[in-house]
Order: sequence, then C-alpha cells, then structure tokens
Amino acid sequence: MDPLDTMLARYADVTVRVGANVQPGQEVLVRADLGAAPLAREVVRAAYQAGARFADVLWSDDQVTLARFQYAPRDSFDVAPAWKPETLARLIDEGAALITIASEDPDLLRGQPQDLVATAQRAAARLSQPVGERISRSATNWVIVAAATDAWAAKVFPDVPPGERTARLWQAIFEATRLTRADPVSAWRTHVARLDERAATLNARRYDALHYRGPGTDLTVGLAPGHRWFSASMRSARGTPFVANLPTEEIFTMPHRGRAEGVVRSTRPKSLAGALVDDFTLTFREGRVVEAHAARGEEVLRQLIATDEGAARLGELALVPDRSPIARSGLLFYNTLFDENAACHIALGMALRFTMAGADQLDNEAFVAAGGNVSAVHADLMVGSAALDIDGITADGRAEPLLRAGEWAF
Amino acid sequence: MDPLDTMLARYADVTVRVGANVQPGQEVLVRADLGAAPLAREVVRAAYQAGARFADVLWSDDQVTLARFQYAPRDSFDVAPAWKPETLARLIDEGAALITIASEDPDLLRGQPQDLVATAQRAAARLSQPVGERISRSATNWVIVAAATDAWAAKVFPDVPPGERTARLWQAIFEATRLTRADPVSAWRTHVARLDERAATLNARRYDALHYRGPGTDLTVGLAPGHRWFSASMRSARGTPFVANLPTEEIFTMPHRGRAEGVVRSTRPKSLAGALVDDFTLTFREGRVVEAHAARGEEVLRQLIATDEGAARLGELALVPDRSPIARSGLLFYNTLFDENAACHIALGMALRFTMAGADQLDNEAFVAAGGNVSAVHADLMVGSAALDIDGITADGRAEPLLRAGEWAF
Repeated sequence: MDPLDTMLARYADVTVRVGANVQPGQEVLVRADLGAAPLAREVVRAAYQAGARFADVLWSDDQVTLARFQYAPRDSFDVAPAWKPETLARLIDEGAALITIASEDPDLLRGQPQDLVATAQRAAARLSQPVGERISRSATNWVIVAAATDAWAAKVFPDVPPGERTARLWQAIFEATRLTRADPVSAWRTHVARLDERAATLNARRYDALHYRGPGTDLTVGLAPGHRWFSASMRSARGTPFVANLPTEEIFTMPHRGRAEGVVRSTRPKSLAGALVDDFTLTFREGRVVEAHAARGEEVLRQLIATDEGAARLGELALVPDRSPIARSGLLFYNTLFDENAACHIALGMALRFTMAGADQLDNEAFVAAGGNVSAVHADLMVGSAALDIDGITADGRAEPLLRAGEWAF
Repeated sequence: MDPLDTMLARYADVTVRVGANVQPGQEVLVRADLGAAPLAREVVRAAYQAGARFADVLWSDDQVTLARFQYAPRDSFDVAPAWKPETLARLIDEGAALITIASEDPDLLRGQPQDLVATAQRAAARLSQPVGERISRSATNWVIVAAATDAWAAKVFPDVPPGERTARLWQAIFEATRLTRADPVSAWRTHVARLDERAATLNARRYDALHYRGPGTDLTVGLAPGHRWFSASMRSARGTPFVANLPTEEIFTMPHRGRAEGVVRSTRPKSLAGALVDDFTLTFREGRVVEAHAARGEEVLRQLIATDEGAARLGELALVPDRSPIARSGLLFYNTLFDENAACHIALGMALRFTMAGADQLDNEAFVAAGGNVSAVHADLMVGSAALDIDGITADGRAEPLLRAGEWAF
C-alpha cells in the first residue's frame, strides 16, 4: 500500500472527478467532521484542480456535538441551528456541488439520554428536510465518501491494537473503493459503466418478480409496475452526470409493496438504533411481514417493523455480487455507505420515488395504490451470500438467472 | 505549570465567564481555526456550564484558505462566500454571544501572489462590514482570545527546537492571561476593575493633552473634545457587561487629529503587511507626520503613512504599564491581541468612534471637524518602555504624572 497521503489524494481525485464530477467554474461545498480534515483538504485541492471556482468546507465536530448532550440544558433539545441546513440549501440553489465525507463514530451518543438524542434528531430532521428534498431530486451533483477516524476504527476493529486500528480502517476503505488499482479514476468509470449496463438490461427485460433462493431463504417479490433499475450513477437537474456513493456496488429498484411471499434469512448483522440485530428470518404474506425472528436483537427488529404500516413492507431491492471488494473484506463497517454495498439487500420501509417511472407526480395515496411503499423508516437488510441464487421472473412465468452462487449471471 | 488540558479549561472558563460573560439561556457562537480545536471544545463546554442554551463552532481552516491561493482560478478572487458573515450577523441579531479564537499563522500567505491576497481581503472586508458594524456598537457580548498553533509558534520562537515551540507559546499565552494565578476568574475581575477605575479617573480629570517623554521621544498630543477613556471592559447593547480582549492591559482614548507636536521613537518592532518595521521615529507638526525614519522597513512605514490623509494622523492613544505580564515576556507575538497590550501605543489612522461622546451621531465630515480621525488603516505603534514618562496636561497648563518610568503614577 502506498503512503496514506498518496492514497488520500487518490480518493480525493476519484471523489471529485468520478463522484461529484465537479465542473469547471462550479463552486464546491464539502461537509466534513474535524477528524476527516486530511481527506477534506485533499478534496478541496482536487476540486480546485478540476476547475472549481471556490471550494469551502462546512465543518462539524463530534466532540462539540457530544458536549451538548453532556452539558446543555435538558429542555433545549427541541431546537436545532437553522443556519447549517439553510446554508446547504442556498449553496445547492446557487449551483454548488456537494461532497459529504462520512466518518461518524457509531457509538458517539451511546450512553447519552436516548430521549434527548431522539428529540435532537427530530429537530434536525425537520430543518434538513429542504436539503433532503434537493438531494432526492438531484438538484445538484453530489457524492458521499468516507474517512477513517480513531473512534469509528475502534468500533470496526475492536480486537486490533488501538494504534493500528485507524490505518486498518483506511486500508479497508481504500480496498473497497478500488484505490489500489493502477488508475482508480478509470477503474471507477469502467465499474460504474458496467453497473449501468446491468441496470439497462434489467430495465429492458421488465421482469414481473424476483425469486430469491438460499439457505433459509425462498422468497418471491413482485416488482412495481413502471419500476426502474438504477446504479448510483445519476444525472443532476442541471445535466451533470455524477456517482452519488463511493464505494458503490449495487443496482436497485422498487418492489411492489403488496407482492412478497415466502421467507428470507439475513446473512449479515444489522445495526439498528445502536443495537445489533443478527441471524434473523422474516416471513412475508401478500407483501407484509407476518413473522419475524432473530437470534439477537429480536425486540429491536419487531419495533422497526411496528413503526408504521409501511415499515412491515418492502421499499427497495438491491443486487450486489458476493465478490465485490466490500463483501470480500468480511467486515461490518457500521456505516451504510459500506454495509449496504456489501451484499444483496432488501429494505423495509420507504421506497425511493425515482425508482418508479412517473412516481414523482403521484401523491402518497396514488403512489401506494401503484405499489409504492411509504414509511418513516428505510432499513437495508443484508440477504446476499455466496449461496444465494436470484432469478428474474418474466410476465409469462419463465425464470432467468440473475445471480448464481452470489455472482452476476447475466 | 499545570498540564495543558487543565490550563485550556481555565482559559475557557475565563473566556466564557469574564470575557464574553455568557448569560444563562444565551446562544454562543465560537469562531476558530481547526488548529484551535482543543481550546474551542473547552470553550463550548464552559459555555454550556455557564448556562448557554446552544453552543456551536464556525470553523475555518488555514489549509483550505491556502489551497485557494495555490490552486483557484486567478480571476476568481474578487468574490468571497457570503454565508459566513451573514451567519455571524444573523446569530448576533438573534442574541448569540460571539467568541473568537485567534490563532493565525502570520506567514500563511507569504509567498502567495500579493495582488490576489489584496483582492481577496477587499472582497472579504466588503462582506464582513455588517458584522464589523455590529461589533463596533457592541450589539452583543463578544471576546477575542488566542490559541497557540505550530505555525504561529514557529514565527514567535524560531530559535526553539520545533517540538517545543507550541508548548512555549501556550506558556506565554497562559502567563499573559494570568492563568497561573490561583483563581484566574477572580484575578481577571480585579484586574479589569482596576483598569476601569483608571479610565474613570482620567474621564473625571478631562485632560487637554498628554505629554510623552523618553529616549528619542518628546511628543505632546491634544485630546479630542469629548474624548472618553475606556478599558476593554464594555457593556453590550443588551446590557451585558463583557471584556472584549483576553489578555487586555490597556486604557485608551481619542487624540485630536490636528494636535500632535514633536517626535516619538518606537520601542518595539511592528509587523506591517508581512514585513517588520523597527527602530523608527515619527515627527509630528499640527497633528500630521512630517518626517518618518526607520532603521528597518522605512519604505513600508512610508507606504502606511501615505495610504490616505488620515493615515498620517493619530486615531488612538493607549496607556499600558511596562510591567504587565505581556511586556515582561519581551516577546513579539506577531498578533495584535498581545502586541498592542505589551506597551503604551499610539495608532496612526482610524479613530474608534465610541471613544468620543456623541461621535456615533456625526457624519465623517463633522467627526473630522470635531477632531476625530478617519482612515482606511489603523496601525498600533509601540512607544512604551521602562524609560517612558507621560503627563496629563490640564486645560490651564498644569502637568500631572500618569506614567513614571513606564509604570502607573496615578
């Protein structure tokens, strides 16, 4: 492996050139925690070298966040500062590209009063809704990447000596992001183009359903009419192509909320509300979870499913080959950017509207009637493994192989 | 000396309790560079412990600033991001206390194209004018403190081994800020109260002029009619007392722009536009500099004086005793917060309006007619030493001792 600063420069170049695809003359806003400063600074450098007119960083600091929970008045958590989300919305409207560096300590707020955490999260979510709305309609070119920090690395590598953990996590990130290839920018363009081809192929085939078969799994899920397959490769409202996640390994589409039959068994643990749910089985009838069992964290799983009507139904199906770099690492990253790209997954809860043609014109009622799912939650659950087969089922009932033994079969 | 984190906690407590004097239920905004993170985090903690409702940090990063000068398009420097000054103005208007941590690397932009630096500074100054206006009328309680960084320490202690410099600068800051006393908060309250008493005494005496006598110095400066003496102890528009600088050693007032006669010799070097001006002499006639000589940096000094009409006249007189902790350190900090509190100084250029009764109601023309000085610059020049005597001259011509051999004499 090359020295850390060489690899950070590569990650920054891929982030700017393939991920956000920063355009000459564009402004760039980077969101980063102080712990991600070395990567954030490289991203600023790369943005300018790509022709950015101005690149700035909106910093946050886990320790400042934590101090609030430790010391602030207990009745003060129902407000959040408006200037940060308003700045984001404003800069997006003014044309800035948005680059988010994820480096969260999964255990930062562990041990803090959970009612305060929930209250603060609700207040922040209310204020960031206008930003989320802009992101979801790709108002600008954006990307999420990741930076290793000591705290995050301690969670992923608890058994590695403390002085070596962060370097190990960086190594895992660099391997997951194909930065060890000779020309990472070119490797990423090729990789994303292949994912796009697969999505295009499935869009042309217009399957009626997918059939999952593996140890403990025999599940058929109908696809929503008008469903569309996507990779993380998108195009902004201004016409700039970008890749929203680095790494990304998935292609994904919208299931029909009323058409799931059978049983599916998890293949990786899921971190939910700070707790781990592992080795679980879900049984579906007419699209709805009717049974849920887990060797660990069953109560948390049941709470998730009971959140609302949509939380017991599917909102996303994603295909990820078992030999992707992330899957081969065998790691649980406690970070969605990696964990959702480690294996085929199904999501309970909210469907992504853009994965159904014309769904952005429908109100919630019409969307649900068309087979789309609405919920306050969206939880990716890993079901892929080297023992999973998936077939596409055509409208006339033929089965065509999509994955065999966890690998692409089309 | 106690361990660094103990001293940082003390500095933070003095900053919050004596400096900004954060009020229960108030919001707090801290401005800090990433290099000042350890102190900034302690300030957030101290703010919450003082009852702040919410404390946030608006971070900046010298390395991100530098990257712009290294890599950004050469024609892009005439704009600055508006969201930072607008956020500051907004939070001040909403009632937030403002705590600024100064930690600038004096040489950060050395070697960058000076025309770009000047263009960027003009653009930033235009945008920050509404913030400056709020600060100058004390719209909220605010304070400036300082944090040692490697880059700054390298400038102050070039002859100390690199690994020891930052600790040395912290030590100098802690001594300058009286944090080595048993009860720093109480020591600061006592110190500021004494400065306020001296200012009140001089306000009652209503001197007509000050007479400076020392090696190479024999200068009489008239005081503006309606002049008022101040310490850094102020009261915000909302009625909260605060101390705007930590450390602070000075009391200061407004000279008459047309009444300076004689010669004054510098006692400490002055860092101007990145260059050092040292061992210089200014000769005044009718308030105006008519001769300027310097053993080092004479050209830079002449450029300063030639900036505009007001740059050749005085805007501030400040009294600082020669045995203040900063003066005793003998250091040049390359930072106004310290250097202007090291010795008696006179400032060429802009006068501070609040140091003349009623001046905030005057337009520039009327202000100048009343003896106030207007200029685009304000340069503090150190003239104090253990050999300086200063007298107050009464309206009827009597001389009363204010400083003798550099120490308070009233």
